[in-house]
Amino acid sequence: MPQLRKDPITGRWVIIATERAARPTDFIREPVVPQSGRICPFCPGNEDRTPPELLAYRNGQHSSSNWSLRVIPNKFPALRVEGSLDSRGDGIYDRMNGVGAHEVFIESPDHYHTLAEAPETHLEQLFWAYRERVLDLRKDRRLVYVLLFKNHGEVAGATLDHTHSQLIALPVVPKRVQEEMDGALRHYEYRGRCIYCDILAQEVDDGSRVVLDTEHFLAFSPYAPRFPFETLVLPKRHASHFEATEDAGLVKNLAWVTRLLLRKFDKLLERPAYNLVLHSAPVQDGPLAHYHWHLEITPKLTRIAGFETGTGFYINPTSPEQAAHYMREAGMP
Amino acid sequence: MPQLRKDPITGRWVIIATERAARPTDFIREPVVPQSGRICPFCPGNEDRTPPELLAYRNGQHSSSNWSLRVIPNKFPALRVEGSLDSRGDGIYDRMNGVGAHEVFIESPDHYHTLAEAPETHLEQLFWAYRERVLDLRKDRRLVYVLLFKNHGEVAGATLDHTHSQLIALPVVPKRVQEEMDGALRHYEYRGRCIYCDILAQEVDDGSRVVLDTEHFLAFSPYAPRFPFETLVLPKRHASHFEATEDAGLVKNLAWVTRLLLRKFDKLLERPAYNLVLHSAPVQDGPLAHYHWHLEITPKLTRIAGFETGTGFYINPTSPEQAAHYMREAGMP
Repeated sequence: MPQLRKDPITGRWVIIATERAARPTDFIREPVVPQSGRICPFCPGNEDRTPPELLAYRNGQHSSSNWSLRVIPNKFPALRVEGSLDSRGDGIYDRMNGVGAHEVFIESPDHYHTLAEAPETHLEQLFWAYRERVLDLRKDRRLVYVLLFKNHGEVAGATLDHTHSQLIALPVVPKRVQEEMDGALRHYEYRGRCIYCDILAQEVDDGSRVVLDTEHFLAFSPYAPRFPFETLVLPKRHASHFEATEDAGLVKNLAWVTRLLLRKFDKLLERPAYNLVLHSAPVQDGPLAHYHWHLEITPKLTRIAGFETGTGFYINPTSPEQAAHYMREAGMP
Repeated sequence: MPQLRKDPITGRWVIIATERAARPTDFIREPVVPQSGRICPFCPGNEDRTPPELLAYRNGQHSSSNWSLRVIPNKFPALRVEGSLDSRGDGIYDRMNGVGAHEVFIESPDHYHTLAEAPETHLEQLFWAYRERVLDLRKDRRLVYVLLFKNHGEVAGATLDHTHSQLIALPVVPKRVQEEMDGALRHYEYRGRCIYCDILAQEVDDGSRVVLDTEHFLAFSPYAPRFPFETLVLPKRHASHFEATEDAGLVKNLAWVTRLLLRKFDKLLERPAYNLVLHSAPVQDGPLAHYHWHLEITPKLTRIAGFETGTGFYINPTSPEQAAHYMREAGMP
């Protein structure tokens, strides 16, 4: 019998279509392998082909090409830092100028390394760079939210092969994050506890959806996932803001967990395209007792049909218990 | 300068990235053309390859193959009619059995006709068939919502070429519909008017986003569209439930408007894949003063990147004013 399951935070229902049960080998796959091609603007030596860098990590001598990570403004930004918000009505509608920032993190100098293949230290420095950029951008009081995300592979929305992630800083809070915050606040007002902390406790107890249980993080398949192999990485100690992280051990652990998850995907699902999104509290807010930052990693295995975007209703052919089972069995690739 | 615009009903913000402005010819396109192939289970003569039909429209002699439209249960249903809901908790989670219906409308006997190419009478009978199935399914008091939708083309989620649409009847209300209902109710409580009626008035006044203004329907590009060329079809007279429609003139007008929109897409965007979704009030509710049924038609022109599904935040490279302008200029193909 198929099941309907409700996401306890946002209230979204999904169908877990167990009778269409899909195993890892059932999905149509287009393995993501970085191609050589025309001159890559993200490769060392081509620094002049990108806008001037905002941040770079270099070791030893400071030649312009001797970097291990670079952050640059997006050449075709969706938002611009200049100008005023000029928020106003338009009859019953609301609008404002597209003030914000749009940046690119070049995660490795190596054109052929995916993030899963790069050394663990690259993921570590990437999370430190995320943090550093958020801390800088939040000084601009107009920017209330900073989105950090990675599109890996063309079907996941990447337009360049060279491994990179992106940042979009916004003068508004995105809808899904606001929904999470609202749902989490309702739970907090009713029970006096963080709903993510409650989920953490139940998932550790239950165990059937757990992928990795480490010192600082739990990686698991959520109870009502929209997509097959959707995976959540939740810090074990409550914290609303990712950028408040100061513990080097925690960042090291996060890098280890993220890299291992990506390598498990590569093994199980043959180098799938994927999306990674970091959900954190609005940057101008102080610490929140009801919200809990986390990573969402979603391999891109199915087409999103119109009825899903048109209704917010999802049919998932792989139960989270099955997905977690396959992920655990993939070992330590 | 890019603009941030807010959807007045759901509160979702979108970026209208005018500096990346995209014209119809800028999109990557894969024209959708029905292919012949192995035996098509939806073609006349192959009726025994589908589950027994739930509804069919036939003219004249009642040979099993002499139909103009058929409705059948989905052979691989995401939900099942049998069994009880058995709604229950699972720690802090909620679930129930996947009780519901999943049906397929074969819109034409002609394998090579897309809905845009079929005679107008086919669209008319399709909308009557939608209505007839909803009226039948709502007798089952467990089913609170009936989704009607069409995925056209592989990238929009269609798995068979022969023109068809689908129905999913659910024991819960889908999230996006619930959000629309909540947003519309807030407006109604505050202003005492239906927000869709207010939008209708402002759009007709303004004119810049109007595509078609007919006796019974307004077709327009919404103020804060998520996707390029997203188009809304709104009945001019307030009605919360599509299935309450009895006026043959209105159905005829709806068929004419829908067909013309699809033909304009075909001309402008070279036979794009698209999704069509009908949003109507929950079927067990009586008439609602605050909700207003409508059609959403969205050509599939861009990839949805992870950050969009991960955040509910959309970047749209074509402003609705530009899209409506191109649609009007496409004439009457």
